[in-house]
Amino acid sequence: MIHRLCIFGVGLIGGSLAKALRAASAVDRIVGCGRTEANLVRAVELNVIDEYTLDPVTAVTGADMIVVAVTLGATRSIFEQITEHIAPTTILTDVGSAKARVVDAARECLGESFSRFVPGHPIAGTEKSGVDAAFETLFCDHRVILTPLVETNRDALKVVFEMWQATGADVVEMAVQRHDEVLAATSHLPHMLAYALVDCLAESDESNEIFTYAAGGFRDFTRIASSDPAMWCDIAIENRDALLSALNSFTVTYGKLFDALESNDKDQLLRIFTRAKNAREGAMIKITE
Amino acid sequence: MIHRLCIFGVGLIGGSLAKALRAASAVDRIVGCGRTEANLVRAVELNVIDEYTLDPVTAVTGADMIVVAVTLGATRSIFEQITEHIAPTTILTDVGSAKARVVDAARECLGESFSRFVPGHPIAGTEKSGVDAAFETLFCDHRVILTPLVETNRDALKVVFEMWQATGADVVEMAVQRHDEVLAATSHLPHMLAYALVDCLAESDESNEIFTYAAGGFRDFTRIASSDPAMWCDIAIENRDALLSALNSFTVTYGKLFDALESNDKDQLLRIFTRAKNAREGAMIKITE
Repeated sequence: MIHRLCIFGVGLIGGSLAKALRAASAVDRIVGCGRTEANLVRAVELNVIDEYTLDPVTAVTGADMIVVAVTLGATRSIFEQITEHIAPTTILTDVGSAKARVVDAARECLGESFSRFVPGHPIAGTEKSGVDAAFETLFCDHRVILTPLVETNRDALKVVFEMWQATGADVVEMAVQRHDEVLAATSHLPHMLAYALVDCLAESDESNEIFTYAAGGFRDFTRIASSDPAMWCDIAIENRDALLSALNSFTVTYGKLFDALESNDKDQLLRIFTRAKNAREGAMIKITE
Repeated sequence: MIHRLCIFGVGLIGGSLAKALRAASAVDRIVGCGRTEANLVRAVELNVIDEYTLDPVTAVTGADMIVVAVTLGATRSIFEQITEHIAPTTILTDVGSAKARVVDAARECLGESFSRFVPGHPIAGTEKSGVDAAFETLFCDHRVILTPLVETNRDALKVVFEMWQATGADVVEMAVQRHDEVLAATSHLPHMLAYALVDCLAESDESNEIFTYAAGGFRDFTRIASSDPAMWCDIAIENRDALLSALNSFTVTYGKLFDALESNDKDQLLRIFTRAKNAREGAMIKITE
């Protein structure tokens, strides 16, 4: 049982975590902290949190668990503001979609508390944001990846592990670099492609007519291009190395497909499409619906 | 009322058209023709069609409406086989996703019947195929684009227009080339990207692990990569010119995004993402759910 949970960033992820932990009776009291007072007021109204403060120091005071659920770009600043005020038994975690730079920031900022910081990433979300989009079952049957380090305290890891289990999530552990590579491939790269596709069409003189005739496949394909631009800008920059490497791999395959079409090589096109269809169908067995 | 409807290719599209027209009491009798007898037997079992034949000439005999719903690559061959046996009042249409080459084939093969051929394309479908995937409401509130030519008989156009209206579709007319450009941008290009992405990930040494951690966004983004490879190979080749032009546009935007990430240009990334999000959200208002 968490007695006093402090959540930085009461949006889709932070708000859903609060709701899920409340529903599981896994938390006593929740304090929210953020930069947008209206969102925090709304979170109290919705009974997602018990109280809020705009002051990070007040927020962490008395907390036995601190969850940093702000955008990646704002994470280091939170660490800097709270580091002197973290009690020696308080456990910390985050929800960032890229882990290497968060871990660097934590190592540089958190001092002795660093061993009680358990890097985490729930593989869940929608294209919406803000506390109004939060819901209790967001993490149910979804994976949460924790990327503990050699320095990470095993008891702290256990507490964070159990916190996520209480939300119904399937919690797994992974090395930081591996996490960043896997997420670059399966999440960050698709977002880049969806953004690039929609932007490319929007630039066309006839974009209005083009979008008029878009159908269901287009809607699904581009759903992720409706995700929060600032958040995804942060993710792209924070996971730049792994993402550039994923983009380079994609460029190669894309080039092969382009060449096959340009040279009317039907066999090669069919080979690529068939391999992709088979791979996706094999993969879908593993993907949480 | 269509008295005898002949459908070449009783799959997702042909089968759904049959079901929709039956439900609307817009057809008396439906004969199916195709190359896979098992599928035709199944179509009769499901009461999607009344009878079937493997012989194209028998199929068109006595038909007042012929719908060619085979893959694009097989369309010319159907035209060649039936052209001598089309009655002088029989109307023809097709459902191909690219229109220029179908129109060329029709012009070359259909002789005097060409004026009664109304090129068509229902913007509907799922990633599934075969008559078992067919359903009555597939075209409801979806667009059907007809691309009549100067030679097209106005009465034939009216009959095909009304046939699609009977399925609940929103029927519009468009020039052949414009159709092919719009579809290349909104449908064919996204399919290429989805196939390329999945194939690129499948080629990775750790593809197994990568797919294990894929989540909902990936599932939606890659759904279209589960579409029938042979059908999409045909579409890509048949709409090659418009598709290469769409791929070239994408390459430019993709390059800009890549450069922005490589040079850590956060402002440019944010600009692209924001423009894309806004364009998509404006566009979604127009897209049939």
